[in-house]
Amino acid sequence: GGAAVFAPLSSRGVRVARPNPMAAYWLPFGAMQARPWSRDDPDGNIIICVAENKISLDLVHERLLRCTPIPAEAMCYSATMHGTPRLRNALAGMLSRTIMKGILVDPANITVQCGGTSVLNSIFYVLAEPSQAVLIPTPYYPAFDNDLTFYAELVPTPFTLDESIDVTAQLNAAAAASAAAGAPVRVLLLTNPQNPLSTMYKRSTLVDALAWCMRRRVHLVSDEFYGLTAGWGEGSAPFESLEAIARAEAGRLMPDGDALAASLLHVVFGVSKDLCMSGVRVGALHSRCADVNNAMFCTTFFSTASAVAQHLCAELAEDTQWLSSFLAANAARLRAAYGALASALREQRIPFVEADSALFCWVDLREGLRPERGSGGGGATWDDEHALWSQLHERHGVLLVPGRSCHASEPGFFRICWSWVSPEALPDAARRIRACLDLRNVAA
Amino acid sequence: GGAAVFAPLSSRGVRVARPNPMAAYWLPFGAMQARPWSRDDPDGNIIICVAENKISLDLVHERLLRCTPIPAEAMCYSATMHGTPRLRNALAGMLSRTIMKGILVDPANITVQCGGTSVLNSIFYVLAEPSQAVLIPTPYYPAFDNDLTFYAELVPTPFTLDESIDVTAQLNAAAAASAAAGAPVRVLLLTNPQNPLSTMYKRSTLVDALAWCMRRRVHLVSDEFYGLTAGWGEGSAPFESLEAIARAEAGRLMPDGDALAASLLHVVFGVSKDLCMSGVRVGALHSRCADVNNAMFCTTFFSTASAVAQHLCAELAEDTQWLSSFLAANAARLRAAYGALASALREQRIPFVEADSALFCWVDLREGLRPERGSGGGGATWDDEHALWSQLHERHGVLLVPGRSCHASEPGFFRICWSWVSPEALPDAARRIRACLDLRNVAA
Repeated sequence: GGAAVFAPLSSRGVRVARPNPMAAYWLPFGAMQARPWSRDDPDGNIIICVAENKISLDLVHERLLRCTPIPAEAMCYSATMHGTPRLRNALAGMLSRTIMKGILVDPANITVQCGGTSVLNSIFYVLAEPSQAVLIPTPYYPAFDNDLTFYAELVPTPFTLDESIDVTAQLNAAAAASAAAGAPVRVLLLTNPQNPLSTMYKRSTLVDALAWCMRRRVHLVSDEFYGLTAGWGEGSAPFESLEAIARAEAGRLMPDGDALAASLLHVVFGVSKDLCMSGVRVGALHSRCADVNNAMFCTTFFSTASAVAQHLCAELAEDTQWLSSFLAANAARLRAAYGALASALREQRIPFVEADSALFCWVDLREGLRPERGSGGGGATWDDEHALWSQLHERHGVLLVPGRSCHASEPGFFRICWSWVSPEALPDAARRIRACLDLRNVAA
Repeated sequence: GGAAVFAPLSSRGVRVARPNPMAAYWLPFGAMQARPWSRDDPDGNIIICVAENKISLDLVHERLLRCTPIPAEAMCYSATMHGTPRLRNALAGMLSRTIMKGILVDPANITVQCGGTSVLNSIFYVLAEPSQAVLIPTPYYPAFDNDLTFYAELVPTPFTLDESIDVTAQLNAAAAASAAAGAPVRVLLLTNPQNPLSTMYKRSTLVDALAWCMRRRVHLVSDEFYGLTAGWGEGSAPFESLEAIARAEAGRLMPDGDALAASLLHVVFGVSKDLCMSGVRVGALHSRCADVNNAMFCTTFFSTASAVAQHLCAELAEDTQWLSSFLAANAARLRAAYGALASALREQRIPFVEADSALFCWVDLREGLRPERGSGGGGATWDDEHALWSQLHERHGVLLVPGRSCHASEPGFFRICWSWVSPEALPDAARRIRACLDLRNVAA
């Protein structure tokens, strides 16, 4: 018949629709959600793979319900497709009061689009040529690979950045390796606070990275999507945007350093994580580069944020009193939830990276890899990690993000997204992980 | 200095940021908006270049204000990024009751994204390879060129489709010319009701086009973005989606025709025009091709509609009683406004295409081109059209869309978007156009 010989998709249509092995950890999500953990059903599934803050959702929702009604203009085309003047003003003010404290942020330097994914696609598309490399320290956000390759066709280039040794040397080595492999480096992408590590970079690391980018004429994209969710750790230093660091340091780093930093530093931020509104689809870019802002404007035809969403976000960002009390309450809740998880992990002898920011915990479950070979998982493979991940959700009802999806440097690490479930479920999660590890070691 | 030698944009960043001559008619918009026409200022500017329905905005806004409060879930990631189940159900029901009357529309065949521009980009990206041609009858929607080239890198290929002569022969000729020029045709893009003509295609034209696509294995994208704004003309036939026509006809056109039509016909629709909500950013695709729907899902990461917008749209589409009374009231208002314009144009002896759908009027101002050569504008150029367009807005305060931006087949035609201003301004618009034409003819 006629239909049989017609292949409806283009080759890129086939490519983008191909199952992404890095996102395979979503496959059990739907079925597991049918029976979630609750006080009444403590044997329900504990889903800790979603990077979303549900712990403070009620606080934001309560405020949203008090927003003024949607004006009729919000139903129409905006003359400023890349963000209403009201929202860009409100976001500029918010930045000036928080992660860019002390800087008079110009609303003209802000581009609003329909979520962080769109902003990342747009900025990488306009900065880099296809097949150029983007250096990304590992472990990193699982979706960067899709975001950077889908339309932008770049080469995400993972590398290890150990903050305890020479940062510049590591950047040089990574760039040299990438160039040798045929992909010259065009952008360094830092996520701060880090995802999945949930820690902040040291200031000296950031200054070294900025200086390296300036010397090498490499763009620096600072993903600060968790910027207002940073520094909730007990006694933690407040978070500082790379934009603020650049304003303080760039001029000292080289002649004309201020102008150069202004043209190569671009900060991504948004409300998805920091204001518990990932479904509202509002993300933003801050850049002082007029050429970049102009090109970003042109990408916005395809990723305009809903004027309704912009209206709500503007109201929240303008309400400075509410915002600062929300941020304080949110930090306290996150500290408490993370504290419950950390205590439980310690109690269950599960090693992890101490967090002070964002919504994650990076746990070391190498003990459960190839247990027949003894503890430590020496020689373990990604298949072994997959087997452990499968057993954790299939037999113990805990769904985590495998480290492989985050480009971990070796198998056996997992990301826990602890803010998507009730904090009361977290001790159970740690107990189940321990039970799984013990069972595997007994079986070996 | 360092900054001087750093070119921040990629070559595609430079390309997309380049001013688009086809969109140059927007340049005077901002300045002219500072002094709009009103009853109190009848010398104000009459801006009739925006394809938006403000005539019934109050009716939709009133209903929006009665929507139930945004649920907390609407702030979170949706498990169904390509449209909430509620919205896709509501849209399926709406289609079944209106432009796809009698068809049980499956919500699984609907993909929701953040506006028509995103939907067009996504569907063309997954259907066609870069450098393949998309046949588009002229005159057409000015933004198609940007929508089809920006990420999708296709070749928009204008051609003349005269419904009074053999449709198949014209399609064959256009496809042959395109292939000879190095761009094989992959998609035929029809806009129905037409923009800027504001008329509906004859049913026989659509059947011929469908049959041609089926025989040639060419995709057919039917842009029905004005589908619920169609057929408001006195005694006009109701609008029928190409999907409904295909269900009735495809099986008769060839063996396996039903399956083939299901894999090559894709209908774009939305609420921007039909429900006066272009700022809300909700557009959709209906396709029965599972491969296409799967690939569309994957594009949705970059163009997810706001869950807040989806919530509001679902409430409106579910309210069947409100929707049908809105559609009737809207049609009556549009008929009245268009009637006022048409009378005024006739009175001013300005030829135009009689409309019965959508929000436009295609006027013939060739009389004002090269008046020194006598009426009819023989030998006139696009520069002459530009001169007339400039004089119309600079000296007479009327901003229209020049036909060149719509790929008109010859200079001198203009699109009037009459639903963006008060209907009371329309007779003034016609008088001003006449005054401009007369002045040019006197001066010649």
